[in-house]
Amino acid sequence: MKNCFEVLKRCKNKNARAGRIVTAHGIVNTPVFIPVGTQGTVKTLSPKELEEAGVEIVLSNTYYLFLRPGVEIIEKAGGLHKFMGWDRPIITDSGGYQVFSLADLRKITQEGVEFQSHIDGARHFLSPEKIIEIQVSLGSDIIMCFDECTPYPCERDYAQQSMELTLEWARRCRKEFDERTSSPNPQCLFGIVQGGMHKDLRKRSAEETMGIGFEGYAIGGLSVGESQDLRNEVLEFTTPLLPENRPRYLMGVGQPREIWEAVEKGIDMFDCAMPTRNARNGQVLTSTGKVVIKNAQYKDDFGPLDPECQCYTCRHFSRAYLCHLFRAGEILALRLNTLHNIHYMVKLFEQIRQAIEEDRYDQAKREFLRKWHNESS
Amino acid sequence: MKNCFEVLKRCKNKNARAGRIVTAHGIVNTPVFIPVGTQGTVKTLSPKELEEAGVEIVLSNTYYLFLRPGVEIIEKAGGLHKFMGWDRPIITDSGGYQVFSLADLRKITQEGVEFQSHIDGARHFLSPEKIIEIQVSLGSDIIMCFDECTPYPCERDYAQQSMELTLEWARRCRKEFDERTSSPNPQCLFGIVQGGMHKDLRKRSAEETMGIGFEGYAIGGLSVGESQDLRNEVLEFTTPLLPENRPRYLMGVGQPREIWEAVEKGIDMFDCAMPTRNARNGQVLTSTGKVVIKNAQYKDDFGPLDPECQCYTCRHFSRAYLCHLFRAGEILALRLNTLHNIHYMVKLFEQIRQAIEEDRYDQAKREFLRKWHNESS
Repeated sequence: MKNCFEVLKRCKNKNARAGRIVTAHGIVNTPVFIPVGTQGTVKTLSPKELEEAGVEIVLSNTYYLFLRPGVEIIEKAGGLHKFMGWDRPIITDSGGYQVFSLADLRKITQEGVEFQSHIDGARHFLSPEKIIEIQVSLGSDIIMCFDECTPYPCERDYAQQSMELTLEWARRCRKEFDERTSSPNPQCLFGIVQGGMHKDLRKRSAEETMGIGFEGYAIGGLSVGESQDLRNEVLEFTTPLLPENRPRYLMGVGQPREIWEAVEKGIDMFDCAMPTRNARNGQVLTSTGKVVIKNAQYKDDFGPLDPECQCYTCRHFSRAYLCHLFRAGEILALRLNTLHNIHYMVKLFEQIRQAIEEDRYDQAKREFLRKWHNESS
Repeated sequence: MKNCFEVLKRCKNKNARAGRIVTAHGIVNTPVFIPVGTQGTVKTLSPKELEEAGVEIVLSNTYYLFLRPGVEIIEKAGGLHKFMGWDRPIITDSGGYQVFSLADLRKITQEGVEFQSHIDGARHFLSPEKIIEIQVSLGSDIIMCFDECTPYPCERDYAQQSMELTLEWARRCRKEFDERTSSPNPQCLFGIVQGGMHKDLRKRSAEETMGIGFEGYAIGGLSVGESQDLRNEVLEFTTPLLPENRPRYLMGVGQPREIWEAVEKGIDMFDCAMPTRNARNGQVLTSTGKVVIKNAQYKDDFGPLDPECQCYTCRHFSRAYLCHLFRAGEILALRLNTLHNIHYMVKLFEQIRQAIEEDRYDQAKREFLRKWHNESS
């Protein structure tokens, strides 16, 4: 087991840290926001735009790519980086979340999951070994173990049983990964801590997962419908259980307020579809809060989305134009909103990293939240 | 009446010519293809992408902009160029085509047209004077007269009556334009020759329209359902009736084969939604003909859309990736296809202008059609 992670700076009196993950496709500065590129593209954006916005890593979904276009095609293309024209790091999820939330008629056994594709109803079987094989073939820089993500609320018995299954699968993933890849393998394998909202289960999951040993550790099973207080409690409890010298990845969380909370608990990585999905629904992130650009009040507002933003959208177009494009159903609206939101997230994390480096996290967080609160609902 | 047009080179033995139109927002080299930006954007593309592709002028639709966002908002934004972030020339159509094809419950009188919006059913009245007022306010570089575009087939009586109405409206448009705009006005006003498929009506329409006097002349009422042979016949008859020293604009035609035919008859300007609309339907233009990228045969085709093309799409992505994106319903597919098709049209016209300048139009046309024919259906 190698170390792809380096902590460069720790906050005084906080668990927040700035660091970097080194991959075969370049360096990822942490804390980092990872845009979601479900089907081999961050929706509406080109790789060039992502690079220009300063995006250092994207996430792609194994489940989707497995079903369409299929792994064979991406392998023939020379891997996912070449297929999608993106030469910076890629993380792929395990598909667990999608199998359990999207697929039909799934049947879970110790061996793996049998399910029907949500696209064409075709039957498939995925095991921990198969999931690793797929991600290795795709050429992902960071590979995630196959896990079961339990819903909320969830009976304790089921949460425990599911957590034990995830542990067993993690062992098999580690084994498959190590056997399948020659040493030194530039790819990294991350384990996922589950256990629902139960602290003892989280503790066991964290300890056993660390016992197996991974290049990084994710906290899964949060942001599944629980309250923010409960999420914070589980996060506050679980994060310190994870090793200091490995990246910690909070899956599926991406609201600015939550990010500030999680970074100070020691989280390094975030992925979330919110910034891109909301952009396509006409909701943009600005320095003073969220703006619903389709609202009538913006029809004749000739200022930029965010006066503090220097993205292509804010430099060239008014709220009035973006409001018009959205109402007229123009694809350019979705592009320009998405570009802005991604730019916003990149800048937010630059701000967070700078605050850590300059040891003024509390102050920076307070300033951010004061402004953010002003106009947001 | 001023002259915004200059012929730089005439083909020997052909009516094809290379020239340029000078506007307040820059020069347009002719023959030129004008991408359609119906609602204040060429669908899916940013102004930056259009500029990088070499687009020198775009068309926007008065009818659409009048209904949404409304002229007042665009005026407040400082005109259409500022509103859409495009500082090169803009031509606006008169809205006639849309009023007669899209609007509901239209009532045509000598005075103008009363109709209901296809968006919200609101009642509106547009007259030649109002149409000019709108286009002047938008700040279009080239303004079109309000005309009635007759369908095909069309009774001779109706075609004649309609053509006379268009003539009367042209006189009122010229008057309104001249009164409304201080001299020297950098905007240009183009007349439209109608008359359906009837040569004598076309002749009268051309003569009378020229009698009024415009900065350029469009041939309208073609590409409305007639055969290509009939269109060619009308075009061959009508084009030479128009003055040599003014730009000639064939409205709504944009198939590569037809463009080669029309340029050699003396046409300088074309607009057509085909390249952008087809791109969004998964059909792209290549040096060997049209390619339906969604077809299964491209699933594992790792070559570019067109090996001869140097656009962003062709330099970075394979047919397999574009096929995947399209089948997966990704917006990036529509963007990349559109960018390619616009690039294709720009390059096609560069080829055409070069052939005129080097006096080898016939040869260039033959070469083009031989290759185009090879793989297209």
